[in-house]
Amino acid sequence: METGVKIFLAGAGPGSADLLTVRLARLLARADIILHDSLIGPDVLALARPEAELIDVGKRCGGKAHPQAEICRLLVEAGQSGALVLRLKGGDPMIFGRATEEMEALHAAGLAFEVVPGVTAASAAAAELAVSLTRRDVSRAVHFLAAHGSEGGLPPHDWAALAQAGGTLAVYMGVRTLPSLAEKLMAAGMSADTPAAAVENVSLPSQRLWRASLGALPGLLAEAAPSGPVLLLIGAALG
Amino acid sequence: METGVKIFLAGAGPGSADLLTVRLARLLARADIILHDSLIGPDVLALARPEAELIDVGKRCGGKAHPQAEICRLLVEAGQSGALVLRLKGGDPMIFGRATEEMEALHAAGLAFEVVPGVTAASAAAAELAVSLTRRDVSRAVHFLAAHGSEGGLPPHDWAALAQAGGTLAVYMGVRTLPSLAEKLMAAGMSADTPAAAVENVSLPSQRLWRASLGALPGLLAEAAPSGPVLLLIGAALG
Repeated sequence: METGVKIFLAGAGPGSADLLTVRLARLLARADIILHDSLIGPDVLALARPEAELIDVGKRCGGKAHPQAEICRLLVEAGQSGALVLRLKGGDPMIFGRATEEMEALHAAGLAFEVVPGVTAASAAAAELAVSLTRRDVSRAVHFLAAHGSEGGLPPHDWAALAQAGGTLAVYMGVRTLPSLAEKLMAAGMSADTPAAAVENVSLPSQRLWRASLGALPGLLAEAAPSGPVLLLIGAALG
Repeated sequence: METGVKIFLAGAGPGSADLLTVRLARLLARADIILHDSLIGPDVLALARPEAELIDVGKRCGGKAHPQAEICRLLVEAGQSGALVLRLKGGDPMIFGRATEEMEALHAAGLAFEVVPGVTAASAAAAELAVSLTRRDVSRAVHFLAAHGSEGGLPPHDWAALAQAGGTLAVYMGVRTLPSLAEKLMAAGMSADTPAAAVENVSLPSQRLWRASLGALPGLLAEAAPSGPVLLLIGAALG
């Protein structure tokens, strides 16, 4: 920190404005230009200086507002201006944050940057559920996966390996594909009785929690029809 | 937050005092009793009130200073006093934080509590290395595992499943067992050329970084002989 670097890729955490890091809160109060995802809430953005330029570069689910190449272009342009630039993503930028493209673009432009880690949604969901993702002799591993592929369907994970590896599954962007995810996991040998949970808008006032077996969760969520981001947790540790 | 609850299990993040959450910084400034792991650094503890009672309940690696049952007893006792109690763990409490025993003890004593998530070491290590743990079409998953079992050796993970599942491995407490971990993964089909990295004391001034192939990393670390906590990252995304 503070080595002359003026471009920061930062994670704003799960949503609540007091779950961002102290380092990020300080950067927010100093940044000249903030390029943020659409999911970054007003309470977080309210921590920016009134003079800061806020640019929503969010790609809404299914929308095509800002393709990744355009975000990279805006980021490089902002960085080249010499301003203090903050690229703000939800959760942690290095976990399903599509940070690689942006880091490569900055690198190609010869611009130095730093990454500021954030609290990832799975940690916040586990905190809200008061359930540890790992448990001695029950769950020795946590597997983070995205259940939303480039084509909108389920990405080609090795379901047998995931079902066999043991541990807790933390599934990001999985609400749409949950019926086929549950089917794949059960076909790979995971019991329909495996405890599971879903958290919508984790850490925000609009948060909703569901607990059910893997077999029952898809039906429960189909009925509840969550519209915010949902994090799924699946595994014996949830029991 | 602030629903009358006076006991908090919180994660202090990877080490640097400005990588804790704003919520935790506020709790630290208010807590009456702080039960903390040994790894929580002086810069973090300096955020506590001067009047706060600080209790180091840390179990040093290999040491037997405070068995888990004793930590639970101290926590319940502190909670029953009516004081504002902060149980402070490194990283995120729900990822290899042994939080279950403490939550069960509080529950059994009829004491309400809240969990405050933190930045886990893998996120901080990825930020320092400027490498995303997930990458479109390269690494669709991240597997967090502990490589230090109850008996000090490597826990019985399903190595074949882990090697097969694809994605990035983030290995906690793995420096002692790295030679056998690398051997198991390579025997399970992971290439010795798989990119890997190790980070000691992530986010602290004493931080050290190593990058090497999976085959070469054990030798490199044996020579460097890190004494602080080390996080290992293994997978194509590191390339």
